[in-house]
Order: sequence, then structure tokens, then C-alpha cells
Amino acid sequence: MSVTLDEARALDAADPLRRLRNRFFLPPGVIYLDGNSLGALPVAAEARVREAVTREWGQGLIRSWNDEDWIGAPARVGAKLARLIGAQRHEVVVADSTSVNIFKLLVAALRARPDRKVILTETGNFPTDLYVAGGVASLVPGVEVRALPSGEVEAAIGEDVAVVLLTHVHYKTAARRDMAGVTARAQRAGAIMIWDLSHSAGAVAVDLNACNVDLAVGCGYKFLNGGPGAPAFLYVADRWLGELVSPLTGWMGHAAPFDFVDDYRPAAGVERFLCGTPPMLGLLALEVGVDLALEVDAQALEAKSARLWSLFAGQVESRLAGQGFTQITPREAQRRGSHIAFAHPHGYAIVQALIARGVIGDFRDPDVMRFGLTPLYLGFEDVWRAVETLGEVMASGGWRDSPERGRVT
Amino acid sequence: MSVTLDEARALDAADPLRRLRNRFFLPPGVIYLDGNSLGALPVAAEARVREAVTREWGQGLIRSWNDEDWIGAPARVGAKLARLIGAQRHEVVVADSTSVNIFKLLVAALRARPDRKVILTETGNFPTDLYVAGGVASLVPGVEVRALPSGEVEAAIGEDVAVVLLTHVHYKTAARRDMAGVTARAQRAGAIMIWDLSHSAGAVAVDLNACNVDLAVGCGYKFLNGGPGAPAFLYVADRWLGELVSPLTGWMGHAAPFDFVDDYRPAAGVERFLCGTPPMLGLLALEVGVDLALEVDAQALEAKSARLWSLFAGQVESRLAGQGFTQITPREAQRRGSHIAFAHPHGYAIVQALIARGVIGDFRDPDVMRFGLTPLYLGFEDVWRAVETLGEVMASGGWRDSPERGRVT
Repeated sequence: MSVTLDEARALDAADPLRRLRNRFFLPPGVIYLDGNSLGALPVAAEARVREAVTREWGQGLIRSWNDEDWIGAPARVGAKLARLIGAQRHEVVVADSTSVNIFKLLVAALRARPDRKVILTETGNFPTDLYVAGGVASLVPGVEVRALPSGEVEAAIGEDVAVVLLTHVHYKTAARRDMAGVTARAQRAGAIMIWDLSHSAGAVAVDLNACNVDLAVGCGYKFLNGGPGAPAFLYVADRWLGELVSPLTGWMGHAAPFDFVDDYRPAAGVERFLCGTPPMLGLLALEVGVDLALEVDAQALEAKSARLWSLFAGQVESRLAGQGFTQITPREAQRRGSHIAFAHPHGYAIVQALIARGVIGDFRDPDVMRFGLTPLYLGFEDVWRAVETLGEVMASGGWRDSPERGRVT
Repeated sequence: MSVTLDEARALDAADPLRRLRNRFFLPPGVIYLDGNSLGALPVAAEARVREAVTREWGQGLIRSWNDEDWIGAPARVGAKLARLIGAQRHEVVVADSTSVNIFKLLVAALRARPDRKVILTETGNFPTDLYVAGGVASLVPGVEVRALPSGEVEAAIGEDVAVVLLTHVHYKTAARRDMAGVTARAQRAGAIMIWDLSHSAGAVAVDLNACNVDLAVGCGYKFLNGGPGAPAFLYVADRWLGELVSPLTGWMGHAAPFDFVDDYRPAAGVERFLCGTPPMLGLLALEVGVDLALEVDAQALEAKSARLWSLFAGQVESRLAGQGFTQITPREAQRRGSHIAFAHPHGYAIVQALIARGVIGDFRDPDVMRFGLTPLYLGFEDVWRAVETLGEVMASGGWRDSPERGRVT
């Protein structure tokens, strides 16, 4: 199962996506396996943000809202993103954070199912999904959040369920749900399906239209490489666009925001889910990341991600057998996303020791080590070296010198 | 009333704030009178954003959340901003947009007054305030928005009013409300007072604590010079911090977001009003603008703004009498903010003609010309030249060649 360094290099040489590696800034001495948390800096983003600051803001000033089409950027970047996730261009817009977008879509969906009162989700979902659902429940009379263990959710989609809110690829385990199957099941029961694509977009092939998905949200700063705190996106299926209205009725969601009238009238399209003035610097940086992802076929992206995963898993199995690593990511390629996770009783200390050696992964409570396998810029040699370093950390006991547990982001 | 160019220059020479002008990038050939809409680029913001992108994101990657204290930025910049608006450092946080923050505070305030159902505000308020209030009313059972003409609001603060939502400085007319007086009146009637400081912060002296204000929001990209779509801020008086909870319960408002637990527990302080991951590029650019504003005493800022205003008004009166300009900004310095507004039947075309000549103001329906008088970087000669140019436009009839009315931001 194990490969040699030369074999890993040969895989890189044959990798059709290899040409994209130089389009990212990857610091010397670092193997970056945390693109599932914050993606690397695209080289072009440096120049794009500089241009946005120096020329568009500095010289263009207020005129750039029109002259540089800042005002059109949320829909423009949304339309590009749509191509990555199998949506029509008018079904996606970039706005706010994932959390805020979940709130908008949950409330909008509940209003479309006034006789049902349950938001169904899973325990151990990414916390913000659970927290926001709870916030919605405390606001909308009668609504309750029903969070069940992962394996029990699908069977529990009953006739009292208004909305099913699930994450496509789990942030901790990387387990990927059957989008088409779960969506169909929810819809057969009369519920509306919301997918959180935070760990999917830019990492695995997603086809929202083919899966007949109702609503979706996702994050801009992970596999889309939009930069720290990049704005998020949301998707509303065409068939819902006429009916659903955002509860966050800010001026940018108005049909004619620059008429400055007193009465709210939602925009005709997905722009009605905009709220305040769009965060231009983050949005323009995100556009660079989305453009990069669009240079690659989504199937090719997913295929490479799967091969990086197999190499990582295989190397750990052969190199680190019996050393306490329990792989918690599903083995079947179709059932996982683009990171690999292991439980280990000393996971926190081991991750710290790896970071100290330039191999950056991360840790999630209680004992999970995560390694992001970003197909756009990561190579097979990177994966090979990462596992070698892990082997050295374990062999030397170097993790015992790791700093005490502190804040981990 | 009118002054000569030499006299205007003498005012600049004697201006204690003049030294700050070079800290901003002001494009050659432009007199920028739209800082009330999008503030100018601070020179230091260029380098700060470049540093954030190239070094902190590019090299530091995920580590910068801790190593560069990105995670602490919303509270850190909030604490700085607090000093500008007369708040304690733990009462202010930077987050989301003004619209989203209005939503959070309106819902939080309504929950603290469960027996009252009215959000009182004024017609002609900045539209997003009205729209968001309407969105809240459609979400919270029984709540209604009562929007009255400006002069009738105070007398209407009755015992059914839960929240009074007003803008301190009006976006169109620049009329400034009596913050202490209205707040006291609202509180005597048992209502909670929310001020929108979007046209106040960085422009006029604001003292939230001295005025006993309950809650406030404000914009980062106007007089605070935070850049296009900069994040907004919100203020919660210390006495409310233990009681009010945001309805947007995203993970960044959790007491321990990195514990990744299923149950939401709000942070102890104003951080509970955070929601999603903070937009770092915009937030770090805003910090530069806030730092600049802090170099100046708020009273000195307001005093200069008042003098720029007097010069503008005086020059228009003497230079353009009888040409259809109706000044709609209150004359008394204490009753206005930091822009000057005129109604004129050909206002749109005149503003376009001015912009074509490098004097950038803006237009608001139906007939209002606005000129921002940003005390940090604007000089008396700028104001003098702006009115001269206005005189030339009127004398030559040059406004008749202006392009047709289009989108105005």
C-alpha cells in the first residue's frame, strides 16, 4: 500500500492539476493541510486586492460602485460560483456569512411550510448550523429544533418536519451525505431541504440542480480560497425565487435600493437575499479564488482529492500501524469529502508537534486530527512528506514536548 | 459672508487638523465631497491590507487567527471605536453590516419589552432602517412599525412603544437629533432607545454614555474611512449586556466557539452579538480609519466640520443667490451633522456636471444635492473651489449637458 518518495513525485509529474500549484502562494518549509479551514492565498488575489484598494477605492472613490461594478459583484461572483455547484447563474449570490445565510434560508423555508414546526438536523453538525437553528426556533413561535445522531436523521423526516438542514461534508469526519437521496426523501415527506456546502464547494463535485436541491449555503474561505472571513454564498432554486423572502430585509435586497423609498419591495431574483452593503475587499478576493476553481473540471478536482486521500490513508496504514490512529473518514470515495481525519488520544499534542515542524493540520475536540487535502494546490509529495513527518513525531515522541492545549482555530 | 481664495487658504494654514490631510490618498484633480458615503483611502490602509494579505494570510495562513490576533479583532477595533463615541471599551464590537446589526438589536430590545409591540421610527429615515424594522415586524408576532414624520416622533413615544429607532444625523438633510433629550424621553416612557450613528461616528462628537443611550449601531465606511463595505459596529450599554441576546446566534457569539459543542451559550460580553466569522480584510482596513480618527479630539473634529459647513453655506449664499438652491440642512451647528444639503429642481444634472469637473458630491431623490464635509481630510480651499465650480456650472449652463439620470450610489 505504501509508496516511495519517487513514486509520489511521479504522481505529481502525471497530475493534470499540477499546473495550478504555482497560482497559489505556499510558504517555504510549510506543508499546508488546513485548506479546509482557511484556503491558501491565490497569487492573483494579492494584485486584485491591491488594485481594489489603491485604484478602485483610492482613486475611484464612490464612483467605483458604478464604474467598477462593485454594486454588481455579489450577483456576478454568485453567478460564477453557480457553475461550481451545478446551479443556474441567477440562483446564487454572495452575501454575509454562512451563519447569517443559514438564518435567512431557515426562516424563509419555515414560512413556506407554516403548518410544520420542526427543523431537523444532526447532533455534532458544525456548531453554527445548530446555534443558528436554535436562534430561529427561539424567534419563530412553535418552531423546534430536532437534532438527532447522524444515522437517525433520514428515517426521522416525517410530516411535521418543515426543513431539513444538513451539512453535505461533515467538518470533522469528512463524511459526505447522499445529496440526491436525502433531498428526495425530504421532499417526498413535504419538507424543504437546505444543504450546507461549506466543506464541499471547491472540493468535491456538487450538482445542486441535478439533485433538485431547494436551498443551500456555503463558505467562501475554505476550499474556495477567498481569504480570512471571506463572504459566504447562498443558493435558492429557481422554483423558489418568486416565493421566498429573506427575513433580513436590508436595503441591498430591495428591488430598487437607490430609489430610497420607505417601503420594502424585494428584488425579483436571488438578490432579495442580500442585506447590507457588500464587503468589497473580501468579495473581490473571493472572486479570484472562484475564478481559479473554475479553471478545473469539478470531476477532475474530486478525482484528485480522492487520490490524495488514498495516498494519505495508505501511508498512515503502512507507516503508523498500531500507533493509535483510528481513521474516522469513510473509505469509499463517494462517501467522503476532501479531508482525512483520525481520532488519536494524543491528537492535540501530535497536531501541535506537526505544526512546529511545518506540517499544518488542525485539531477538533475531543480527539480528532484533521488534514485538508486541497486538490488545487496540494501535491502527492506533500502528502508523502506529511506522513513521514508524522512518523518522525511518533517515533521520536516529539509530541510529548508540545505546548499545553490552548485556543485552536 | 463670502471669502476670497486667499482667505480660505489662510483658514487652512491655521487649521490644527491640516496635518491629517496627507494621511489620506486624495486623487489629483478631485475635490471629494462624498466622504459621507464612502470615505477616502487612508495611506496607511494600503500597507495594512497588503500586510494582511501577503504576510498574514499568505504566509501565516490559519495560524494568523491566533498569531496575529485576527480572532480578537472585532472586540479590539470595537474598543477603539468606543472611544470615538463615548462608550466603554467593552460595550462596542465590530460585526456584519449596519442592516444586520439593526436587526439584532431590534429583536433583542423587543424581547426585553415583551408587553409592548411598537417599533417607533420616522418616515424618510435611511431606508435600511425602515426595511429592517419591517422585516422584524413580519417575524415577531404582534409587532408593528410606526413610522411618523420627523417632527411627530418624539411626542408619539407612548406606553405601547417598545423601541425607538432613530438616526442621529439624517442621511439626506444632515439634521441632527438631540441624543440626550430623545433618549431620556424614550426611557421615561419605558421604551428602549436605538440610535443609528452611520452619519455621526467620525464626524461629530458623540457621547453615548453621557446620553445614557441603550443601544446603537453605525457604519464603518463613511466618516470612519473603513473602505467599501467595511464592517459595521454595534453598541450595547453595560447595563444591558447581561440581559440582551442576539437572535443571530452564530458560532462567533458563543462563549467558547472553539469548544465546538452542540448547545449555544452566549459570550459574556458584547461579543455575543457577533455571528459568523469576521471579515478580516475589511475589518483590518477599518482599524486604520478608526486609528486615524482617534488622533483627533472629537470636539476639534466637530468644530472643524462646523466651520467647513459655514464656509460652504456662506459661499453659496453670496455666490449663488437666486439660482434655485434651497439649503435644507439646519443652520444651527448643534442641530446638524457633517454634510450640507440643498434642494434644487435640477439637482441631479448639476451633481453630474460637478462630478464631470472633479467635484464629487452626490444626489438623493427627489431633488437633494449632498456635499460631505469630512473634517479629517477636507480643507477650506477645497470648499471654496467646490462652490466656485458650482458657480461656473450654473453660469455656463453646463449642467444642461449632463448625462441622463442613471443609477446613483
